[in-house]
Amino acid sequence: MSSSTYTVYYGSLVTPKTLTSYDASLHALVAVNSHGVIDWVVYDVQDSLVQTTLLEKGCPDAEVVELKDGQFMMPGFVDTHTHAPQLPNIGSGYQYELLEWLKQVTFPMEAKFSNVEFARKTYSSVVHRIINQGTTTCCYYGTLHLDATKELANIVHSLGQRAFVGKCNMDRNSETYYVEPSWQSSVTDTRALISHIQNLESGSSGIPLVKPILTPRFAISCSDQLLSSLGELAKSNPSLHIQTHISENLSEIQYTRDLFPKCKSYADVYDSFGLLRDNTVLAHAVHLSKEEIELVANRKAGISHCPTSNFNLNSGVAPIGKYLDRGIKVGLGTDVSGGYFPSILNSVRNASIASKIIAMQNRGQNDNQGGRGGFANDQLSIATLLYLATLGGAEVCAIDQEVGSLVPGKSFDAIVADVRDTAGNPALWSIDAETHDLTGKDALEGMLQRFLFCGDDRNISDVFVQGRRIGGKSN
Amino acid sequence: MSSSTYTVYYGSLVTPKTLTSYDASLHALVAVNSHGVIDWVVYDVQDSLVQTTLLEKGCPDAEVVELKDGQFMMPGFVDTHTHAPQLPNIGSGYQYELLEWLKQVTFPMEAKFSNVEFARKTYSSVVHRIINQGTTTCCYYGTLHLDATKELANIVHSLGQRAFVGKCNMDRNSETYYVEPSWQSSVTDTRALISHIQNLESGSSGIPLVKPILTPRFAISCSDQLLSSLGELAKSNPSLHIQTHISENLSEIQYTRDLFPKCKSYADVYDSFGLLRDNTVLAHAVHLSKEEIELVANRKAGISHCPTSNFNLNSGVAPIGKYLDRGIKVGLGTDVSGGYFPSILNSVRNASIASKIIAMQNRGQNDNQGGRGGFANDQLSIATLLYLATLGGAEVCAIDQEVGSLVPGKSFDAIVADVRDTAGNPALWSIDAETHDLTGKDALEGMLQRFLFCGDDRNISDVFVQGRRIGGKSN
Ligand SMILES: [Zn+2]
Ligand SMILES: [Zn+2]
Repeated sequence: MSSSTYTVYYGSLVTPKTLTSYDASLHALVAVNSHGVIDWVVYDVQDSLVQTTLLEKGCPDAEVVELKDGQFMMPGFVDTHTHAPQLPNIGSGYQYELLEWLKQVTFPMEAKFSNVEFARKTYSSVVHRIINQGTTTCCYYGTLHLDATKELANIVHSLGQRAFVGKCNMDRNSETYYVEPSWQSSVTDTRALISHIQNLESGSSGIPLVKPILTPRFAISCSDQLLSSLGELAKSNPSLHIQTHISENLSEIQYTRDLFPKCKSYADVYDSFGLLRDNTVLAHAVHLSKEEIELVANRKAGISHCPTSNFNLNSGVAPIGKYLDRGIKVGLGTDVSGGYFPSILNSVRNASIASKIIAMQNRGQNDNQGGRGGFANDQLSIATLLYLATLGGAEVCAIDQEVGSLVPGKSFDAIVADVRDTAGNPALWSIDAETHDLTGKDALEGMLQRFLFCGDDRNISDVFVQGRRIGGKSN
Repeated sequence: MSSSTYTVYYGSLVTPKTLTSYDASLHALVAVNSHGVIDWVVYDVQDSLVQTTLLEKGCPDAEVVELKDGQFMMPGFVDTHTHAPQLPNIGSGYQYELLEWLKQVTFPMEAKFSNVEFARKTYSSVVHRIINQGTTTCCYYGTLHLDATKELANIVHSLGQRAFVGKCNMDRNSETYYVEPSWQSSVTDTRALISHIQNLESGSSGIPLVKPILTPRFAISCSDQLLSSLGELAKSNPSLHIQTHISENLSEIQYTRDLFPKCKSYADVYDSFGLLRDNTVLAHAVHLSKEEIELVANRKAGISHCPTSNFNLNSGVAPIGKYLDRGIKVGLGTDVSGGYFPSILNSVRNASIASKIIAMQNRGQNDNQGGRGGFANDQLSIATLLYLATLGGAEVCAIDQEVGSLVPGKSFDAIVADVRDTAGNPALWSIDAETHDLTGKDALEGMLQRFLFCGDDRNISDVFVQGRRIGGKSN
């Protein structure tokens, strides 16, 4: 490959390493090839040595894009759970719990997406907004409508976001105005959506950015025949992703048990239909039993932690630390509009709060019981929060070999965070030399903390997917 | 008064009425006189009747300022607890609990304010930022430094915000580099600050907007002699406000008990020195005993609920509903930088979350015990959140006769919230006719909810104090 095909980003970099550590370099070089893939990364390259390094790497003519002081690169956010048609309801209806909220707030809005023109217009705004929040990979639930969900996939595709797009399967226990007429039509429409998405043109790298995902809404809304057919569809397509809700709310759990008396648990419902596997994304998982945790772990399924929604709808506090201790993959989800914010930054903050609540509860009850080595009883650190927001989410989506951290061989799915005052977010106080004694990596860690806790879309200058800039502050 | 001295605002209005109700009118007229005081308010005035109404009110020539569709007036936010010198640390250090956090993060930053030039520059940015978050009244802690805190008062005064400004009293149990040399000098400096603030020129209404407030940092940091002297100062000035911290963290409570073995409780420490009265603002109050709740209620002191900080520093979840049931005044505080956001909007969201956590815990434990009529076991409604953010805060500051709601006789301390897409906050989805069926007051209630849950400074067009515009989006 000729050196001119590289774009080399030069500046501060933060990237997750493990659940408890991340790499941070004030002066990193990141070389992205013409396929949008990171070819090499060198840390701690002083200004005066940039050209030498490029020469050593055999690309002296590469285009160098220099970040400003107060900016840093990091992997883009992975939103492992959100509902595209619910953004218009964001910030309302939090007096309800799940089942009533679906009936009063969610289903009436989703029903509007039978109008394809309405869907096109609304989804265009939805996806723009989500990209500009720094979300480079997003797991979207559409509505039950085939045509509207095709539009969603088209829009995501044309805007260049990496995404999983699914239409909801729901053939029972909904409102008469918003339910699929039969399990057969649900399966037919699902197959049609899969073909449609698989026929979307691949990106310049030949890698398709938008993928289909089976989306049985939740067990309550799916008849046995429907779940069974989806399980067969999954079986014949081992690489086909699956997303659904699990164990969000106590009434929902009871209702599910009543509907599936032969299944040992909520998780067992999905498992018994072949829907629990290593590319299954399980949203919420607030109240899993010990047996269910074992089952999810053994199937290598991932959990989408949606703390804002879990608070808002009075669902509960998901014991994420316990899942991490068991080795279960965990990512973050916004779960709009159960969650009131389309940004993973908000999920980071509320994941922190959720973990502190559990830590405080356990402090009161278990102070003398020891065994605090793992995540279960402790607050999540900055390193862990960063991991969950990026690489953890990629693991949940089973795409962690391709994205989630800025290392050679992975796609350049990244954001440039900007924590300068000039970014225009008055809630974030930038680290300036006059006020702060922080220097070097301490300053960079301080910048990361401020971005995660105080940042908003104004602090996201650029959003890259597969090396291509698809959004950011000026978009 | 001649009619030309009125400014009449015409548009949508939301204002709290009781803890569980608020008034909302899509077409209200609010007449503000030349002293910045609301003279009259008329709800539900159609476009065609505006001139008639002005004529009836005797001011046909009044300047009419018309709000746009998607904007509404509401009382400005009252931030009942924040630390001006800590804004530069916002968003960092949340791995610590209170006492360690003070030592590692807070005191090193506050010590820098011995430099008056630094203080002037920093506070100028601090106060600007807080005003533009819609905070019309703010209870500020300065540092222990007299000169720096004078600067803070000067800046608040010149920017026109309503505020209480206090310098911290702390003559013991701090770091050697950040502690007052003696209780005598602490008292002398406090008296000097009070005089300085009382000599600041009053506003056009003759009402001073900036007031001094006694600020014993917390019992731990104050010797008996210091508390005793402050108590005497308070006794001789019944209208002098008092602010302090109470019962935030378990280690802090234990330490306080050890320091004051003769006092029955943490609250009793303040009470025994005459510092607990109807214009005392008590921050946090996470772990009050039954006896302390009774004492606070009997003294008519107010509680500043700082949920973000209480989560961040692992302090706990304050049982605000219980306090409301007991008739205690409650407002919201940002407690920057224990809290990571300088906006009461964030406190509203986390107050909602805190109440839902308590409601969920009680659901598990007390499902069959009944007695759920009040606030103690329930989530806070939108009406209650609105109240706490505005009128409740005014009550805590004992200025609810002057501000906190938009009714005749009170000062026009107000914000214009703007929930249109053009406000530029992509996280807030505006209520448009195409997407939503909401009309009339439903639409206005929807706008209020969206503003509270998804809004930020971009959704605050104007900030008025005593009738004067002092900030807003374009500032
Ligand atoms: Zn969901
Ligand atoms: Zn405080």
